[in-house]
Amino acid sequence: MAGVPGTSSTIFSTVKDVGANVIMISQASSEHSVCFAVPEKEVAAVSSALHDRFREALAAGRLSKIEVINGCSILAAVGLRMASTPGVSAILFDALAKANINVRAIAQGCSEYNITVVLKQEDCVRALRAAHSRFFLSQTTLAVGIIGPGLIGRTLLNQLRDQAAVLKENLNIDLRVVGITGSSSMVLSDTGIDLTQWKELLQKQAEPADLANFSRHLSDNHVFPNKVLVDCTADTNVASHYYDWLKKGIHVITPNKKANSGPLDRYLKLRTLQRASYTHYFYEATVGAGLPIISTLRGLLETGDKILRIEGIFSGTLSYIFNSFEGIRTFSDVVAEAKEAGYTEPDPRDDLSGTDVARKVIILARESGLKLELSDIPVKSLVPEPLASCSSADEFMQKLPSFDQEWTRQRSDAEAAGEVLRYVGVVDVVDKKGQVELRRYKRDHPFAQLSGSDNIIAFTTSRYKEQPLIVRGPGAGAEVTAGGVFFDILRLASYLGAPS
Amino acid sequence: MAGVPGTSSTIFSTVKDVGANVIMISQASSEHSVCFAVPEKEVAAVSSALHDRFREALAAGRLSKIEVINGCSILAAVGLRMASTPGVSAILFDALAKANINVRAIAQGCSEYNITVVLKQEDCVRALRAAHSRFFLSQTTLAVGIIGPGLIGRTLLNQLRDQAAVLKENLNIDLRVVGITGSSSMVLSDTGIDLTQWKELLQKQAEPADLANFSRHLSDNHVFPNKVLVDCTADTNVASHYYDWLKKGIHVITPNKKANSGPLDRYLKLRTLQRASYTHYFYEATVGAGLPIISTLRGLLETGDKILRIEGIFSGTLSYIFNSFEGIRTFSDVVAEAKEAGYTEPDPRDDLSGTDVARKVIILARESGLKLELSDIPVKSLVPEPLASCSSADEFMQKLPSFDQEWTRQRSDAEAAGEVLRYVGVVDVVDKKGQVELRRYKRDHPFAQLSGSDNIIAFTTSRYKEQPLIVRGPGAGAEVTAGGVFFDILRLASYLGAPS
Repeated sequence: MAGVPGTSSTIFSTVKDVGANVIMISQASSEHSVCFAVPEKEVAAVSSALHDRFREALAAGRLSKIEVINGCSILAAVGLRMASTPGVSAILFDALAKANINVRAIAQGCSEYNITVVLKQEDCVRALRAAHSRFFLSQTTLAVGIIGPGLIGRTLLNQLRDQAAVLKENLNIDLRVVGITGSSSMVLSDTGIDLTQWKELLQKQAEPADLANFSRHLSDNHVFPNKVLVDCTADTNVASHYYDWLKKGIHVITPNKKANSGPLDRYLKLRTLQRASYTHYFYEATVGAGLPIISTLRGLLETGDKILRIEGIFSGTLSYIFNSFEGIRTFSDVVAEAKEAGYTEPDPRDDLSGTDVARKVIILARESGLKLELSDIPVKSLVPEPLASCSSADEFMQKLPSFDQEWTRQRSDAEAAGEVLRYVGVVDVVDKKGQVELRRYKRDHPFAQLSGSDNIIAFTTSRYKEQPLIVRGPGAGAEVTAGGVFFDILRLASYLGAPS
Repeated sequence: MAGVPGTSSTIFSTVKDVGANVIMISQASSEHSVCFAVPEKEVAAVSSALHDRFREALAAGRLSKIEVINGCSILAAVGLRMASTPGVSAILFDALAKANINVRAIAQGCSEYNITVVLKQEDCVRALRAAHSRFFLSQTTLAVGIIGPGLIGRTLLNQLRDQAAVLKENLNIDLRVVGITGSSSMVLSDTGIDLTQWKELLQKQAEPADLANFSRHLSDNHVFPNKVLVDCTADTNVASHYYDWLKKGIHVITPNKKANSGPLDRYLKLRTLQRASYTHYFYEATVGAGLPIISTLRGLLETGDKILRIEGIFSGTLSYIFNSFEGIRTFSDVVAEAKEAGYTEPDPRDDLSGTDVARKVIILARESGLKLELSDIPVKSLVPEPLASCSSADEFMQKLPSFDQEWTRQRSDAEAAGEVLRYVGVVDVVDKKGQVELRRYKRDHPFAQLSGSDNIIAFTTSRYKEQPLIVRGPGAGAEVTAGGVFFDILRLASYLGAPS
């Protein structure tokens, strides 16, 4: 039909004869159809007239069909100088695409102030909002769902609350927390929860927690085109959903170590999907909390540096214990002190076992390209074998002093050699292995000079070979961990188009 | 005219009567015009027929004009299921927008496999390439212009050469160096210089260096929609062009400290433009080379942490000198040794003056929000007053030993108090000031434990208050500096849409 002079003419004279209003016309080049819109109430008359007029052409197959698509809406973006301003159509269509709205037809005249798109009627409010928020409100809007308003989640919510206005003003980022779920109840909002009173809302206006409904609320959100789920739990079950969320186009950010230190095949599947689908999955806070560890490692790798070894003190608790294990104090004294100060888990064996350090080692090992399972990492547990089966933390603490002599001996041996004991995790990229163990370091080594409960991580690479790149600082604590998660949220916003 | 039944009919029956082919039609809703395309050779006849047909309407003002726009081309994106695949139009229009191509008219029929756009004829090859590369080649293509193939630029070119294939494979990033310019000659390419032989090309196929032509080559590049200029010089003149480049939509990346440590008003103007225009300007390598300093600071600030103080040893040369100024050695001995080992500038006064440290301090101060000029930073120069006017480095080195006694005294005083001397830059955000001076640190302070020529930077913030966040490692050298620049290039690619 394209290029046959007269078809358009016949169509529109027929439409004219029934007195219908043509609202828009779109006929793409090399096409075999003319698409035009008339008000819903005139559709029947136009359709009938066209069927009459083209009866013969239809019967002969010169025209394949006259199709009516009901239930359409027209969205028109109107503005001065639109046709001469590059990029306006890009912004409009990008906003619609990110809101997952299907464009049925498009028209833009060449001396015009108007781009017209035909959409399904059911999409029209959503489309209007997506276009409106993109042109008039903030450049990058991001709907955030927070899972686990415990210590870290709560702190993150406070940081988001305090920083929201600044982000809008300076970086044109509009963050909206549209859902918060604990283990028993959740609160949802279409446009954003008031973060000054989320706690009250979670008590009063909450509904029963349901992770499936929670993620559906985010993916069905019609107002915001970009969505992220932030998992602030340490839950394996929550982590098992990342794959599905990413598949739905929901970005995922987490300080939860479970997904990346779980089974290798699941981790690889997750990363492969994430990379191919252009959804983002960030987990800076899984290692060293807010310290720039994962991002630094990625930067080195992506720019072609070769990682030789990553070595670090990854546990604030064990850092504190060995930094304090000096002078006349016994090991059990120091552990008791750390427990009283709240530096350890309620049962110190959870720290002393080294499992948490091993998870961080496996995360960095996999990030460096090693295909290792958690079980491939030999872990030196600091829990004396006979005390592993103590039925309570109290019993453990009570019996720990009987092992002090051996600890004192180890320390003395080290001291005699001018060295100190440090509990470290090591990723040996050259030999493709990792380990968690107690090592001795010379007194002038950066690891020997640690104080407090600092983490310290040293990257030895082709570029940083003689002297490693070292990051040091508090690697635990609610404020810095939430800060690390927040940083990932802003990185996501930048990747989605916010200014830098 | 919109909504008046019959106008379209009359138009197209007239077009039919002259036997012209209507290639596309676009009439947007609520519009006052119908836009359609016919082949150039039929334009005159159609125009004349329409003028005849609407003579009366034109005279009466019911129709304002019949306009012919010559020199247009039609670009059609054709594919199965396009109308039912959200986002296809977004990708197309985004590709055109990033290539700075103005879309004159658009049509997409609703049961169609085709989006048609009308463009200026002169844009059509560029548009085709932009669309093609976006749909069929790499997701993120980036044209790179390298200014200054000296030590850092050369190393960066080698890193780009070695890593290009990996980036294409893993991150879908297609980096093309389309220009390299030294101070005397430059080599340009439309599609990418072969990085295995850029040196030969710069000798044989080069043309006289001309920065205006060089940047024009980048901004006129029709193949790649995204462009970045990488300034690897230390030149104030090159830095003075950043504003114009950003204004043209060219991103800027540099290890050159001159722009950010120059006049405050120019710096602020640059940052304001950059933020408003959504072009990116990265300069990680201006402080600490490849160490994550600027990015860490930005992350803290943007997530709402309050910076209290940034304190650091920012000069590898001065780090080495004070780390080595121990035992029985004199200050002049250590300086001589550093000079021989190539750790200092040819004239060590360039390091000892502290100017370079002051520039880093002002960069971090401004990044932290302080509105300071370089001249606001008091700098303790280590060049003895009487030697500032020595006419040569040799003369300076010869006379330096006569000042050793004073240095030895300062060191002894410090040692007596269990302290060491360190040359530091400090940004005091609380008191809104910066300084560069010689300070004394306790032996267990992280700054006291430095070795080699490492930089060390400590961020004390609301979140990192008891124990600062510390980054340490080599802060100079071609490999790590080029690595820092390269990291900025990849960050740019991510911000432009590459996967993470």
